[in-house]
Amino acid sequence: MPDWFSDKGVVDSAIIGDRGFQYGDGLFETIAIRNGEPRLWQYHMDRLTKGCDCLAIKVPAQDYLIAGLAKALRLADHSDDNCVAKIIVSSGDRDRGYARPFVAAPSVFFGVFPSTVPAMKSYRDGIDTRICKTRLASNSALAGLKTLNRLEQVLARSEIYKTEVFEGLTMDAADNIICGTMSNLFIVNNGDISTPSLASCGVEGVMRRHLIETLMEQGISTDIQAIRLADMNNSDEIFISNSQFGILPVRRCAKMQWSVGEITKKVMAILADAGVAECRL
Amino acid sequence: MPDWFSDKGVVDSAIIGDRGFQYGDGLFETIAIRNGEPRLWQYHMDRLTKGCDCLAIKVPAQDYLIAGLAKALRLADHSDDNCVAKIIVSSGDRDRGYARPFVAAPSVFFGVFPSTVPAMKSYRDGIDTRICKTRLASNSALAGLKTLNRLEQVLARSEIYKTEVFEGLTMDAADNIICGTMSNLFIVNNGDISTPSLASCGVEGVMRRHLIETLMEQGISTDIQAIRLADMNNSDEIFISNSQFGILPVRRCAKMQWSVGEITKKVMAILADAGVAECRL
Repeated sequence: MPDWFSDKGVVDSAIIGDRGFQYGDGLFETIAIRNGEPRLWQYHMDRLTKGCDCLAIKVPAQDYLIAGLAKALRLADHSDDNCVAKIIVSSGDRDRGYARPFVAAPSVFFGVFPSTVPAMKSYRDGIDTRICKTRLASNSALAGLKTLNRLEQVLARSEIYKTEVFEGLTMDAADNIICGTMSNLFIVNNGDISTPSLASCGVEGVMRRHLIETLMEQGISTDIQAIRLADMNNSDEIFISNSQFGILPVRRCAKMQWSVGEITKKVMAILADAGVAECRL
Repeated sequence: MPDWFSDKGVVDSAIIGDRGFQYGDGLFETIAIRNGEPRLWQYHMDRLTKGCDCLAIKVPAQDYLIAGLAKALRLADHSDDNCVAKIIVSSGDRDRGYARPFVAAPSVFFGVFPSTVPAMKSYRDGIDTRICKTRLASNSALAGLKTLNRLEQVLARSEIYKTEVFEGLTMDAADNIICGTMSNLFIVNNGDISTPSLASCGVEGVMRRHLIETLMEQGISTDIQAIRLADMNNSDEIFISNSQFGILPVRRCAKMQWSVGEITKKVMAILADAGVAECRL
């Protein structure tokens, strides 16, 4: 039943007709494959489960996901012991229109891509950031989730395309700094580590969680709170986290500048010991 | 280069890898085909152009879109003189990650589906609505556009799945009523017609525009303003508009009830004369 066409001819209706494409009705996880194994798998599974619950999509079985991922890693051109895997879970391929069962049976797709870890220089000297003009809309129903509705991140990221800036930081409408387009933010002030609350928008990164929990095990608490430009300006050190690169020191945000400080270096060492080898200086 | 897999095997990477699927980085138009011709084509083209400008996607040439649509209508199984066509314009198939050129070259897809016009009873007696719990986030950068980021509509629509309710109405965080999940709202009070402002969220429907402009030509003005539950409660008549069905009287929203009034009938007659034959009682 050909329903969909491009100028090249018939398009696979099962893919373009999927509600992931039609409405962004789904979720994804971007997983670091290290030594052939998915890193922080349980945290990815936890976030995916939470997302499926919020969107009323049946959670795919863990065994099914692990088997599918292993098969994709075996078959993909870009597969390597160290690469990037992406799992998309959508609400499936159904009739046109927003309506769908509550709870929807999922479609699951597995993608494999080359790894993209920054150069050692970025870990040692830090990276440049900027505050994006694009704001994050506050919507508690989707806050924290990694849904397929990512236009705000796309627009924010476009602001730094072809610049020397590594990451764009985004604020909500009330001037709270929430996260980067692809990372979470941490600030250090008088030795205290804080990260923005993601209660109303932003994505809860798995590396953010890993970092908070690993520091907690070392007796180091991380405050989750509102963070504003003035707080960044008053902070001694800043770093960002992401599932692929671990953490990276921030040396600049617009006119604000920081050195790579002792706390950041200590956190990197702790993370490196906790399995995030990229952070070993 | 197989990059993407499902449990059925290799998936067409050009489709699932498209930024429309990955991030909802694109737009769509749902067009009523009537007597073989796209209805309100210029309004669809105008909204698509505005959307492409906002998302920094190159606007596809009108001739290209018209030719692609004609070809899809010729080839599709569900094609008919009266059917539904959908055009998706995305920012294309590129490397993984949010980054893309500013301005992006588009991918364009054409879909064809059976028509879904409500029964005459709905035009004569009106339909039931409900206020959804799901709220629309306010984000002026995307307000009014028909982007592929439609999770709010999906969640709102899920609230009325398998109920007798025809449409769910959605509010912003400040309790302003904005629009239906798939329609725009009009209220009539002492003969005055109003429709919610879409300055910070909601979708600017082509039928809403057609209605406002057609009424204007008849010397009837439509106020665009904030509308709250109390305004609905105080109104004499209510109707909703959509590109496929034209307008439908609302007879109920939760406990509020209305009759199909004279103004609504007059608007339906005006619209029917202006080419929306479904509205002819």
